[in-house]
Amino acid sequence: MDRYAQVMKVKRFDIEAGKLISVIHEIDAKELGVLPLDRIEITNLQNKKKVVTVVDTTTTMVGENEIGLFADVQKALGIKSKQAVEVKQSPQPESVALIKKKLEGKALSEKEIKQIVADIAHNKLSEIEASAFMAGVYIHGYTLDETAAMTKALVEDGKRIRFKKGPVVDKHSIGGVNGRTTMVIVPIVAALGCIIPKTSSRSITSAAGTADAMEVLADVSLSIKRIKKITEKTGGIIAWGGAVDLAPADDKIIRIEHPLSLDPEGQVIASVLAKKASVGSKFVVIDLPIGPGVKVSTREKAEVLSKKFVEIGKRLGMKVECTITNASEPCGNYFGAALEAKNALEILEGKYFDRVAEKSCKIAGILLEMSGKAKKGFGEKIAVETLKSGKALEKMLEIIKAQGARVLKSSGIPKAQFVAKIRAKNSGKAKKIDVKTLIKIARISGAPADQLAGVRMLVEKGKKIEKKSIIFEIHSENRQKLALAKKFALTKEPVEIK
Amino acid sequence: MDRYAQVMKVKRFDIEAGKLISVIHEIDAKELGVLPLDRIEITNLQNKKKVVTVVDTTTTMVGENEIGLFADVQKALGIKSKQAVEVKQSPQPESVALIKKKLEGKALSEKEIKQIVADIAHNKLSEIEASAFMAGVYIHGYTLDETAAMTKALVEDGKRIRFKKGPVVDKHSIGGVNGRTTMVIVPIVAALGCIIPKTSSRSITSAAGTADAMEVLADVSLSIKRIKKITEKTGGIIAWGGAVDLAPADDKIIRIEHPLSLDPEGQVIASVLAKKASVGSKFVVIDLPIGPGVKVSTREKAEVLSKKFVEIGKRLGMKVECTITNASEPCGNYFGAALEAKNALEILEGKYFDRVAEKSCKIAGILLEMSGKAKKGFGEKIAVETLKSGKALEKMLEIIKAQGARVLKSSGIPKAQFVAKIRAKNSGKAKKIDVKTLIKIARISGAPADQLAGVRMLVEKGKKIEKKSIIFEIHSENRQKLALAKKFALTKEPVEIK
Repeated sequence: MDRYAQVMKVKRFDIEAGKLISVIHEIDAKELGVLPLDRIEITNLQNKKKVVTVVDTTTTMVGENEIGLFADVQKALGIKSKQAVEVKQSPQPESVALIKKKLEGKALSEKEIKQIVADIAHNKLSEIEASAFMAGVYIHGYTLDETAAMTKALVEDGKRIRFKKGPVVDKHSIGGVNGRTTMVIVPIVAALGCIIPKTSSRSITSAAGTADAMEVLADVSLSIKRIKKITEKTGGIIAWGGAVDLAPADDKIIRIEHPLSLDPEGQVIASVLAKKASVGSKFVVIDLPIGPGVKVSTREKAEVLSKKFVEIGKRLGMKVECTITNASEPCGNYFGAALEAKNALEILEGKYFDRVAEKSCKIAGILLEMSGKAKKGFGEKIAVETLKSGKALEKMLEIIKAQGARVLKSSGIPKAQFVAKIRAKNSGKAKKIDVKTLIKIARISGAPADQLAGVRMLVEKGKKIEKKSIIFEIHSENRQKLALAKKFALTKEPVEIK
Repeated sequence: MDRYAQVMKVKRFDIEAGKLISVIHEIDAKELGVLPLDRIEITNLQNKKKVVTVVDTTTTMVGENEIGLFADVQKALGIKSKQAVEVKQSPQPESVALIKKKLEGKALSEKEIKQIVADIAHNKLSEIEASAFMAGVYIHGYTLDETAAMTKALVEDGKRIRFKKGPVVDKHSIGGVNGRTTMVIVPIVAALGCIIPKTSSRSITSAAGTADAMEVLADVSLSIKRIKKITEKTGGIIAWGGAVDLAPADDKIIRIEHPLSLDPEGQVIASVLAKKASVGSKFVVIDLPIGPGVKVSTREKAEVLSKKFVEIGKRLGMKVECTITNASEPCGNYFGAALEAKNALEILEGKYFDRVAEKSCKIAGILLEMSGKAKKGFGEKIAVETLKSGKALEKMLEIIKAQGARVLKSSGIPKAQFVAKIRAKNSGKAKKIDVKTLIKIARISGAPADQLAGVRMLVEKGKKIEKKSIIFEIHSENRQKLALAKKFALTKEPVEIK
């Protein structure tokens, strides 16, 4: 159908809206037959470039016959001056009807999910529409077919890396809170001939993400080209996933899910496996920590989730194994980027063999067995040997150097300027250690923005504690933050001594 | 808990965002421990005014230690220059947790619904959060208790009008498409001593809303004060509801529902009855047209809806009756503001008694009986008499004058400059009249922005039609729009002649 077209003068707003939106006067909206949040098609009359935007109406921001365009829309249309554009009503994108279908509890086909992912990736859906979709997914869930389709759509929408050599292996932890096992696993398996192009996230709610901790030692904001080159050279890498466009739609979905902490199971599976598939991983271990306050609360839930991971992995051509680990006590004694990085490096340097080292060797062992680098039942043993022989450290130093080394020794990692010592009020045993509160203390002290901020535990669950001995230290580069963190720690008492 | 505070320099963006949002640099977001779409508390250090906004992050729009504030936030903080503000992380408003509760299928209490409505009304919820809420309501629905609570919350959130005299009556049509019965009912019942402070809407998807049609005759953008004054003087009024703040949260909810056409039943009931309750109506008739393409498709659905309207009305202290009417053919022969206004005035002038007149007298009759102005069984008869005696016309002219008359006679209503005549291709009977297509034709021709645009039907369902006789006219003030409408009409053939 032909539509009525109106020529309008551009008013430029040099602000990024992060979405395709334009503003017209209420009178013109009536004239064009559109309501706020409807869509219009804008044509640059000089170069014939077209773009469809969501429209908002005003009586003050622009005059009649004027259209306000934000930086994103100006760029899409190639507009550089106060020129004229042609404006028409535009039908809703197809995926709006598909969102309604999902809200009504009907399953979407592979093609339909692909359409929604494409429209999210290219900013064609408004936040209202994308949010309604995620609410629908949260309430109705995905079928296995839908989860597989979502995973494929996320992979196809983003960029990919292909390695000539193999086996390509990978690992992921769902909702783990501390202990940088990745920084121990990657050098172990890479030292034994696996290819492990690990992309990690930064902290969202924890004291530090793996990308934050690795950044203390080396550069983690790497391009796809460099990730490929470094991994091909050294066998392993630990890069920040957010710096590469591996799955842009996924990043946008996570942003929409965040305000209401919606994380429907199917979307989590798709998000994790899409990132593995886009770097060509064939053997993947998913670590599922369980415990109170962790994402997955019970063993039963972890087992159901585990089966789904395995099944979706199979459909994407990946062999997936899940490990269910106990997270009722912290994994490792450190919370914060520099402290956790130091912990990982000290393990590789052979200074001690703690719970982080143990868990790392277990997961590395599974990867070695899955990929045929170790015989069934010998994976963990070989991992421990590789760690103790210093070969893993050697490989890690090679990786750190390839990523533009900042620090090469655990003793070279700087310590925070201000440290507060929290002492035991009475003697007894550490009965309970509240991980959530420790993370909160680390965050108040400045983590993750302040790399040196965080918490260093000096006690372990079940161990004896003398009255007035130090139970943990709080580290910070900012006096105000340290004082707030100390006050919070003294009020909350995260370590129960009885 | 005390929170870390940072002093930042204001960068002003003189643009209304229509919501409370601010923009900070990614580095400061990390420093403050917030992610995009989290909330921050901003304090104007000069006057101590505080406001909580949703935050977005950027690397280009503002520099480090700078905060971008849109016009709405500047106003809330009383900021007029490049001054400094203090910025802190802020917890989510309580209603975010309540939205999640609704998504999980749990019913909300009266207090909880009140909290959500207040946060929507005061722009404290982002579009993502409000949209997720409406998606939850769409999927899970409301219990009767929730619907009643929503209705009360909408009433309490807005302004109210109280009349000294009574009985205050009202009517509402759910998804009716044409035929301005309101413009006939209001003068009839007002002439007989009822108080009818009718607020009507403008067109959203139809050719004209009652407010659009009334605007052809008089001013409809009236303040609460004038609505009260005019109604107390004349007994009746027909005003545009959007001009008064009777239920601001409702307007915002409708805006969020629009992109996905979400209109959960409970929300529709609450929206309609809240507007009636806020003007103190005691007797209300709800007209439920049923038919294909209308909001309510079957008699069964209409009966279920009808019972809920009656029950919720009772809880709000209103007596509600519902009429279920057949909408498989158009109500009246006119589509468009001026054409429908002319139709109503001609009925009042006694020029003819068509289906619009018949339906109007039926509904007016019910209102008269409910309010005790007519004996049971005599309402409609009295309504017809009042219409035929000219008393209703007299009252209507009084109302039009009080609202600032533009036109006082049907013959004084102007006709569109351009008219296209659509003729029958063959002879036969009008078997089917497609109301949806006729509305589309009226809208393409310029309705509702162009008051004179629309469609005038010259045939009725079942009536004989000669070949080449005119079946309908398309009216427009714009040649381009008329040509598009004519082309569309000739392709779609909304009148089936057999």
